[in-house]
Amino acid sequence: MFVIGSGGKHLEGELRELGGEIIEVELRKFPDGEKYVRVLGSGNEATVVSSTFAPQDEKIVELLLIGDALREKGFKKLRAVVPYFAYSRQDRVTKEGEPVSVRAIMKALGIYYDELYIFDLHNPETLKYFPGKGVNVSPARVIADYFREKLGDGIVLAPDKGARERARAVAQEFGLEYSHFEKRRISPTEVEMRPVDIDVKGKNVLIVDDIISTGGTMVKAAQILRKLGAGKIFVGVTHGVFAEGAIERVSGAVDELAVTNTIPTPVSKISIVPEILRL
Amino acid sequence: MFVIGSGGKHLEGELRELGGEIIEVELRKFPDGEKYVRVLGSGNEATVVSSTFAPQDEKIVELLLIGDALREKGFKKLRAVVPYFAYSRQDRVTKEGEPVSVRAIMKALGIYYDELYIFDLHNPETLKYFPGKGVNVSPARVIADYFREKLGDGIVLAPDKGARERARAVAQEFGLEYSHFEKRRISPTEVEMRPVDIDVKGKNVLIVDDIISTGGTMVKAAQILRKLGAGKIFVGVTHGVFAEGAIERVSGAVDELAVTNTIPTPVSKISIVPEILRL
Repeated sequence: MFVIGSGGKHLEGELRELGGEIIEVELRKFPDGEKYVRVLGSGNEATVVSSTFAPQDEKIVELLLIGDALREKGFKKLRAVVPYFAYSRQDRVTKEGEPVSVRAIMKALGIYYDELYIFDLHNPETLKYFPGKGVNVSPARVIADYFREKLGDGIVLAPDKGARERARAVAQEFGLEYSHFEKRRISPTEVEMRPVDIDVKGKNVLIVDDIISTGGTMVKAAQILRKLGAGKIFVGVTHGVFAEGAIERVSGAVDELAVTNTIPTPVSKISIVPEILRL
Repeated sequence: MFVIGSGGKHLEGELRELGGEIIEVELRKFPDGEKYVRVLGSGNEATVVSSTFAPQDEKIVELLLIGDALREKGFKKLRAVVPYFAYSRQDRVTKEGEPVSVRAIMKALGIYYDELYIFDLHNPETLKYFPGKGVNVSPARVIADYFREKLGDGIVLAPDKGARERARAVAQEFGLEYSHFEKRRISPTEVEMRPVDIDVKGKNVLIVDDIISTGGTMVKAAQILRKLGAGKIFVGVTHGVFAEGAIERVSGAVDELAVTNTIPTPVSKISIVPEILRL
């Protein structure tokens, strides 16, 4: 049975359509800003679905309140599906004195939830901070399904080496070739970016990544691919954490930009709901 | 050593002036809304000071991030001073399916903090939800000190029976009499409110309570006291969680309204900093 939090409202209709049984929950805000939660159902096991996009702290606290309400009602096993996990990029101490912020949030959710499912977590190793069972869910299948016909016998590229594993996972769904962009300093002020060991000429290309925010890298990658004579250029990203103007910037540089609906945006054309129902 | 969170910035100057040693902390927000925290100091023990007024969820998450950063830096003992504790009025299940929200927040802070100090907690029993040592700090002394001369040989009143213990604590600081207002239904539509077993005629009155929001009760109490021939009427409340227009409404009905600075407001004239330094 699903309980839908504020960060999952945009998935509710499809979850219901595809057969998900949903427990009603009342969610509102007191005049002073405090959240109010009330769960209108009972049972033994529940799966709470809520992405933690901005305002992320409100959604995090709400997940705690829903967890508390469900435990109070006697639910024995609680799973949290947090498709986009806030603070996931604050995954290490880069300057002394910083927290590992993602750890703090995972520990807090661990108070109430036995299992945590996140889509395409920025750094999957950080799941170790969740006290219960933590699962990183791959969106490779839904992204591949969306682009299958458009891409044809094209190739899949990651914008950097760090995202190469994602490119591999998506390419495998198609049975296509994959590679990644490499950055190389060619002068004190210039960095060259090029796809490694792969010929893009005449090929359609799908660039994949976990998060897109300013979109700067995607625009640059697209410009290089055009120069190299690529065919159609698609961008398929998991989480659309778009900065202002980013959707327009990227859309203008590529043939199509599509992200999943872990975060609702105007280009969240790829649904993760089928994957949620499979968990 | 003190670490000042976003909800304690208004106390920082006075804490420093009165000799509190302060560890610098960098607090900011990323463009996507995520908080960034960096602690610029080291040590073994730290006291993090941050009230959780609106936006409360941001301040709660920030307390977790600061706690994580301090643990990461090797701090062994962490105390949280949260003068106003958000969600403290959501202290029980009144309708089936509700959480005990204050419990969720206390449990979350328990991940990082060994001790928790709250001023005039709405329901002191809820401290049992904090896994470490929880302390309810009385503002009676600072409130009494503020009103001592103005009140003279007046009396202290609580607006209802539930707040009677607060009136007692403040009255004791003065060595003055105290009582509470009682509500009595006098017709199907009318409720009468009157002070129990005490003569207010010609006496200055200080009405005390833990939280003031709309101020409706205070205005009503003041009107009744005027009718009963009271002298000057003062309102001295711990937490000024004012609804819009409430400060003006209450100020217009009484001789003086003053709250403590657990929350910064235009009438936060009573400082709790001396009490913080005593912890």
